[in-house]
Amino acid sequence: MALMTGEEYIESLRKRGPLAIYMLGEKIKNPVDHPIIRTSINTIALTYDLAHDPNHKELMTAKSILTGNTINRFCHLHNSLEDLQNKVNMQRLLGQGCGTCFQRCVGMDALNAVYLTTYEIDEAVGTNYHQRFIEYVKKAESHDWTIDGCMTDPKGDRSKRPSEQSDPDVYVHVTEKRDDGVVIRGAKAHQTGAVNSHEHLIMPTLAMRNEDRDFAICCAVPADAKGITYYYGRQSCDLRRLDESEAGDVDCGNPVFGGQECLVVFDDVFVPNERIFMNGENEFCARLVESFAAYHRQSYGGCKVGVGDVLVGAAATIAEYNGVASASHIRDKITEMAHLNETLYSCGIACSAAGHKTPAGNYLVDILLANVCKQNVTRFPYEIARLLQDIAGGLFVTCPSAHEMSNPETRSIVEKYLVGAEGVNTMDRVKMLRLIENLTLGRAAVGYLTESMHGAGSPQAQRIMIRRLINLDEKKKLAKSLAQISD
Amino acid sequence: MALMTGEEYIESLRKRGPLAIYMLGEKIKNPVDHPIIRTSINTIALTYDLAHDPNHKELMTAKSILTGNTINRFCHLHNSLEDLQNKVNMQRLLGQGCGTCFQRCVGMDALNAVYLTTYEIDEAVGTNYHQRFIEYVKKAESHDWTIDGCMTDPKGDRSKRPSEQSDPDVYVHVTEKRDDGVVIRGAKAHQTGAVNSHEHLIMPTLAMRNEDRDFAICCAVPADAKGITYYYGRQSCDLRRLDESEAGDVDCGNPVFGGQECLVVFDDVFVPNERIFMNGENEFCARLVESFAAYHRQSYGGCKVGVGDVLVGAAATIAEYNGVASASHIRDKITEMAHLNETLYSCGIACSAAGHKTPAGNYLVDILLANVCKQNVTRFPYEIARLLQDIAGGLFVTCPSAHEMSNPETRSIVEKYLVGAEGVNTMDRVKMLRLIENLTLGRAAVGYLTESMHGAGSPQAQRIMIRRLINLDEKKKLAKSLAQISD
Amino acid sequence: MALMTGEEYIESLRKRGPLAIYMLGEKIKNPVDHPIIRTSINTIALTYDLAHDPNHKELMTAKSILTGNTINRFCHLHNSLEDLQNKVNMQRLLGQGCGTCFQRCVGMDALNAVYLTTYEIDEAVGTNYHQRFIEYVKKAESHDWTIDGCMTDPKGDRSKRPSEQSDPDVYVHVTEKRDDGVVIRGAKAHQTGAVNSHEHLIMPTLAMRNEDRDFAICCAVPADAKGITYYYGRQSCDLRRLDESEAGDVDCGNPVFGGQECLVVFDDVFVPNERIFMNGENEFCARLVESFAAYHRQSYGGCKVGVGDVLVGAAATIAEYNGVASASHIRDKITEMAHLNETLYSCGIACSAAGHKTPAGNYLVDILLANVCKQNVTRFPYEIARLLQDIAGGLFVTCPSAHEMSNPETRSIVEKYLVGAEGVNTMDRVKMLRLIENLTLGRAAVGYLTESMHGAGSPQAQRIMIRRLINLDEKKKLAKSLAQISD
Amino acid sequence: MALMTGEEYIESLRKRGPLAIYMLGEKIKNPVDHPIIRTSINTIALTYDLAHDPNHKELMTAKSILTGNTINRFCHLHNSLEDLQNKVNMQRLLGQGCGTCFQRCVGMDALNAVYLTTYEIDEAVGTNYHQRFIEYVKKAESHDWTIDGCMTDPKGDRSKRPSEQSDPDVYVHVTEKRDDGVVIRGAKAHQTGAVNSHEHLIMPTLAMRNEDRDFAICCAVPADAKGITYYYGRQSCDLRRLDESEAGDVDCGNPVFGGQECLVVFDDVFVPNERIFMNGENEFCARLVESFAAYHRQSYGGCKVGVGDVLVGAAATIAEYNGVASASHIRDKITEMAHLNETLYSCGIACSAAGHKTPAGNYLVDILLANVCKQNVTRFPYEIARLLQDIAGGLFVTCPSAHEMSNPETRSIVEKYLVGAEGVNTMDRVKMLRLIENLTLGRAAVGYLTESMHGAGSPQAQRIMIRRLINLDEKKKLAKSLAQISD
Repeated sequence: MALMTGEEYIESLRKRGPLAIYMLGEKIKNPVDHPIIRTSINTIALTYDLAHDPNHKELMTAKSILTGNTINRFCHLHNSLEDLQNKVNMQRLLGQGCGTCFQRCVGMDALNAVYLTTYEIDEAVGTNYHQRFIEYVKKAESHDWTIDGCMTDPKGDRSKRPSEQSDPDVYVHVTEKRDDGVVIRGAKAHQTGAVNSHEHLIMPTLAMRNEDRDFAICCAVPADAKGITYYYGRQSCDLRRLDESEAGDVDCGNPVFGGQECLVVFDDVFVPNERIFMNGENEFCARLVESFAAYHRQSYGGCKVGVGDVLVGAAATIAEYNGVASASHIRDKITEMAHLNETLYSCGIACSAAGHKTPAGNYLVDILLANVCKQNVTRFPYEIARLLQDIAGGLFVTCPSAHEMSNPETRSIVEKYLVGAEGVNTMDRVKMLRLIENLTLGRAAVGYLTESMHGAGSPQAQRIMIRRLINLDEKKKLAKSLAQISD
Repeated sequence: MALMTGEEYIESLRKRGPLAIYMLGEKIKNPVDHPIIRTSINTIALTYDLAHDPNHKELMTAKSILTGNTINRFCHLHNSLEDLQNKVNMQRLLGQGCGTCFQRCVGMDALNAVYLTTYEIDEAVGTNYHQRFIEYVKKAESHDWTIDGCMTDPKGDRSKRPSEQSDPDVYVHVTEKRDDGVVIRGAKAHQTGAVNSHEHLIMPTLAMRNEDRDFAICCAVPADAKGITYYYGRQSCDLRRLDESEAGDVDCGNPVFGGQECLVVFDDVFVPNERIFMNGENEFCARLVESFAAYHRQSYGGCKVGVGDVLVGAAATIAEYNGVASASHIRDKITEMAHLNETLYSCGIACSAAGHKTPAGNYLVDILLANVCKQNVTRFPYEIARLLQDIAGGLFVTCPSAHEMSNPETRSIVEKYLVGAEGVNTMDRVKMLRLIENLTLGRAAVGYLTESMHGAGSPQAQRIMIRRLINLDEKKKLAKSLAQISD
Repeated sequence: MALMTGEEYIESLRKRGPLAIYMLGEKIKNPVDHPIIRTSINTIALTYDLAHDPNHKELMTAKSILTGNTINRFCHLHNSLEDLQNKVNMQRLLGQGCGTCFQRCVGMDALNAVYLTTYEIDEAVGTNYHQRFIEYVKKAESHDWTIDGCMTDPKGDRSKRPSEQSDPDVYVHVTEKRDDGVVIRGAKAHQTGAVNSHEHLIMPTLAMRNEDRDFAICCAVPADAKGITYYYGRQSCDLRRLDESEAGDVDCGNPVFGGQECLVVFDDVFVPNERIFMNGENEFCARLVESFAAYHRQSYGGCKVGVGDVLVGAAATIAEYNGVASASHIRDKITEMAHLNETLYSCGIACSAAGHKTPAGNYLVDILLANVCKQNVTRFPYEIARLLQDIAGGLFVTCPSAHEMSNPETRSIVEKYLVGAEGVNTMDRVKMLRLIENLTLGRAAVGYLTESMHGAGSPQAQRIMIRRLINLDEKKKLAKSLAQISD
Repeated sequence: MALMTGEEYIESLRKRGPLAIYMLGEKIKNPVDHPIIRTSINTIALTYDLAHDPNHKELMTAKSILTGNTINRFCHLHNSLEDLQNKVNMQRLLGQGCGTCFQRCVGMDALNAVYLTTYEIDEAVGTNYHQRFIEYVKKAESHDWTIDGCMTDPKGDRSKRPSEQSDPDVYVHVTEKRDDGVVIRGAKAHQTGAVNSHEHLIMPTLAMRNEDRDFAICCAVPADAKGITYYYGRQSCDLRRLDESEAGDVDCGNPVFGGQECLVVFDDVFVPNERIFMNGENEFCARLVESFAAYHRQSYGGCKVGVGDVLVGAAATIAEYNGVASASHIRDKITEMAHLNETLYSCGIACSAAGHKTPAGNYLVDILLANVCKQNVTRFPYEIARLLQDIAGGLFVTCPSAHEMSNPETRSIVEKYLVGAEGVNTMDRVKMLRLIENLTLGRAAVGYLTESMHGAGSPQAQRIMIRRLINLDEKKKLAKSLAQISD
């Protein structure tokens, strides 16, 4: 039952009850076959297919610490420092394979963060969230769910706390407590892969005070639960995918794969007790948020590195197609791209190798280094993309559409003048240029650039954590001691 | 007659003979009213309208050195160091006004470069190109032409010289010499504003050797000349402009203004003698290319600075709308954006102030500093855009379409959750986010980023010039002298 | 009388009354001939000698706006935008000639700032400071003085205003008002060239409030005035200059030239009325400080560029000596060094060209661009120095002393193993390496790096000014207008 | 016997035979007590003392894979991925403790590289170097030796191979083969800790061809072997340590600890057979060089991070002393320093965690990531140092000498004007400023900056390795596959 194939995953999406999805002013009837949505589904499907690939299944799967069963690593509670590193390696592999955001990490990171937090809540205040959550994870493992780790609230006026907002709904909160569960209302913004998920695992978005207790809610709801509406986020160049011709494929750059973000609105959604994992224990919100953020900041040291490999490969290929692969400045720029990319990978690996076992039993990354990792991810991909644009030449933003290369009136002339190095197929050159557009300005740039900036927290969020974790007092002592200053 | 208004300019485009323009697989009948093309026309129209604006006409116009008439500065042969600085200031003003590429600079830069080069050819080899060109400039001035300065050939295999190419047409060249003129064939790539121009002023793209003499051709042809075909270049998010609804306007970000690049093919176009300004004097190609490049590298120290002002303004506005304008890290990032932008402006001004009068009588920028200017333009706009993305938050890539805000089914919910700081109109917030998308990933990013990289020559082209012009021998002497090393 | 030679300047220093100077625990009897001090005097002497050099005298001199006499440009009240640019060019020339800080700019900048401020005080409050100051400037011009522009107070506790300090002396202030003048007490820190000056022109260090009125004092005192003591600042590698052997010369790197900073203490120094140029008009302190800072931030776009030329030359020379001058990465790094250096120069030129005439009649730089200039100077020299260290190879920090090359026991062996490219004199290679040490770690690094950081105000001081001057409101309007947001 | 204390180590140096050491033109009689040399000895002594420190001994020691004995980790053959990480952690600890280069890493790295290479030589060509080397390592372990890993030859004319040099001695080579051993001649440059070592483990400096076979020599000689001469390298501010007063201590900044580099000349030194570990097997030089370089490039991700901690601590301390610790820009710069430093640490950890077991049985780092690590070390320390200079304020380069603070004539005045934030001891402030000078311009800057640039290979050496190891072909396939280009 565990380990679905990509095809089975897609079928499982069809089996969900109907979802209320709005996109470009319309309600989408059949999301699975909508061309824009479908590319984002294809990307997640890869996380299922590679688990069956003999070359990759060892990396893509793990042995459950709950059942001993072989499961997709995306459902796994990390069981060793090696597991943490394998997570990063798996993410790099997938980023290489799709060249965009594969959306499924956020659920994996949420599972691990909720797992360790529920244990700590129970230890401290005697609740039984952890056992509940274990049952939930077992289901996630056995159904091989894609889970949307649901954290970021819209936040309204950022100068006010949740309980101070004029409209409390800008943070998800409990509006009714019943014997058998709670009713929640609010929304989560920027939800990666929301429409493509089986489940939403809802978490509070920041540390909460006593007066914000109603906002201290962690729970799970199925994607097709009553009361949920999805507002599909527009992406740069999204409309290109509506051209389903072969020329459209070319001009998409990456015709098969794409990412997805949605605004997900919860309008009085009922959550039964067994799906509630925190309810009012506001003093544990910080732990949940910081551990989730740490796992997710680690993730960027894997997935973006994989996409970075595609940018490096695109640079090397277009340099060849342009006939300049041996120019020393081109070679040096490609080296620099790879250097920056491997630096990000080093950060992903380091926070994993420096991790530790939590009281709950799963493994958590080193939080300081995970923040350092993500902070670099807010910088280097932009420079890697800039270098790729440099190497590509300007044609990727001035090239006529691929239709001009299929239209018999224009084909031969366009092909004549878009020719590159001898022996290179001109259409291949155009395809590579369009991939470069996709990666640095188009749909994939949304994930490779802006998501690198803001996903798992904006840069300043990491700086605050870094500042807090570097132990300045210890470092001041070092300096004073060397200068022979007595404290 | 000189100093058309924007409206007159648009009418003048309609009066041209029919142009063969291909875009997205179709031949465009009415370019002036095509929604995508029209935004690029609107942008050029601004260069005409502001010449009538009492606040700006002093900057936008100049007194012709040929006739003494008041003309649009875009047709002007620079007559002083102040003129060179005013050029930069005019470009900054226009970049501020349209937030994208206004396309008309390349013609101004070509006029000045051809002017000085024809004089030097005539002086050296006794031709009479310069007088011919003076007559041409007079017409340009009196008709207030938008001229496409036409330099970049497709180049085919970059490891070979023009005369060595298997298909010589990848460089524009003379295919027939007649008593009354010549016939040319070939193409020019990345032609900014090509479809919106009255004229193409064709120049060779690099230094030519004796064997490349047929490629050493400089001449002018009207945009509607027989034998010219235009292949419209696709831009990121181009299709958004085909949605002509108000929601479409919002999602365009910058609904009114846009840029344009085309592949322009010259298929045996006849050029009469009076429009030929170089024909086989290959030894002067380097001078023409280097002086044109210098003028155009200066230009980027004006136009991109103006667009940069829009990015700074967008950053400050969205920070306010998000309710974080007073956060110290936000304030610091805005300061950094402005600092980088003013550094580019300083480079634009410096190469102007350090310019000199040419033997022909017009003024040329300092070539070293103009190359330094452009080299910085290949870097700082990327960092400015990155900082803007940082300040904006991630919503500009995950926001539902503006249709969701007009659809009565969804409007209130979307508006409820996209709310920003108190008192801010939510639709205004969305508009600003879409402008930020437009500037950093969308249509304007083509101009602000990729064109900043490759326009007026890719970064390595500037490095080669810088290397050549820094007088290393003099600097080595300085170091040796201080170290008391006798030469 | 005006236009002393370097020799005459040195003689003029001897003619001053005795100065109380402490250095390395001792009171210095004869500063002019002290080896460490002498190098800093040699540097200023260059500003005199070059005024007589036929190649440079046009740049080094100017026509006084007060008398019409030809004077050293260092005493000049700038009379045109060209003058402002010539100032920068003069500074570059001198930086090239000495490879370190030539100390005399701060007086020139103070003269111009006090000139324009006294005019504005008189206009506003009816004092007669300006006429007094004109008389002072005339003397400065005719005696060809080196003036120490004396601004930075020690500041004590930076969280308190001058009048709140527990010891008011940490800001220079008036301790007694007499009919014929005032008595001042306090100190000025980091005083460049203090011991080598004829005069100190004392200015307040920041904007003052009413309660700080006693600190709002601007006046001039001779360097040998009663009550002044000088505490000589240590510099990196300062002791090397005490080795007066030839080997010592080599290991100094730049044996002839050096910089100087002192702590200057004013212990109840009397100032007669005719030398007082502000006394209690605290509301004008900001104007004086900001205009002085602007002039001095411009200066860094000249002097540091000249020293930067020496670093570029040293890089090119050592690359040759090492036999790697043609390696592409070496060539590229030298190009980058020059590019950064010319960017600084562009900033120096731009704030000059964009300057304006003040109500007093002299010319002031564009204050925003001058701050942008200096902000870049706090960054690029560090990168230029880093690149020089890269190109040099590590030998400049591991090389045996030059004594090993004169000691007959060791000479031949050391020479054998320090050999570079064929044909290069090994001692020349060592000298160049020592110059590189001097520039990036040694005495000149004090000026090229740390002074670039903090001279004329630390980086944050410029950011505050940039923030204040960029007119964010105007930029917000641009962005809103393009996004069609009505204000 | 193993695990000497620092004191025992110092005694062991005295017990060596006399060494021929030249410094500043003189032959040094008693190196152990020479003030300049002694600081560098103190630093190594720390590597011995901390092995006895209950808080650190677990990290500082390891269990020998040869004998099972507890040994100092500096003598250890790494036995696990954890060992590789512990090596980095130990180096960070030591860098924190001394704030400079502790010199002993290069021997540890050489031991591991020679160990794996001798095994591979023996496997391939049937020699018995490995067993010999095992015996040598056992001695190193049991004597707790400090070993100078001796690789970098002077290289003479860099455009020529060793065998082509006009003077072959610029590369160490075999000049005589005897039955009982070989005689070698040549020199090694930049030898860290050479005078403070018990042994030199000599390795070839680059890949050798057949004709360079005589240069393919790897062997060990005692530091006091006949024929060795040491030429002590000058360091920035070296002379300050000759002032042995308390004021001298202050002005040294870091009075106790320092680094050391020497030129070591081998003038016909005899090496008995049992100390020869490669002799003519030129085809293995590349493996030895690359594995040694990889280990040593990893090292920089530990030691420089430790010194970086001191810079961060110095920044935080001086900010407090200056009274500006809570300014947001100061806080942000300290965060940035720490972020960069932790990025370097991440690189050190990552190449360790991604390492692997060699055929010989010890563990080797991931070579690509080790090169990425070192490449970052050639950049970030310079930026960290720049930020420290920014935070410090300019006083660290203009402060009078500490003698002025002990001289009763000047003490009170200097102290009065150098006062910082209330409650801060002024001498403590001066001490901290001098430490900052030491770290960014002085003796420690040699190690923290220039050695970061060139130690373990200059930046270009890493770029060549990175380029070679990134598997561009695989990355090109990724890009082509996404763009649907069939190979």
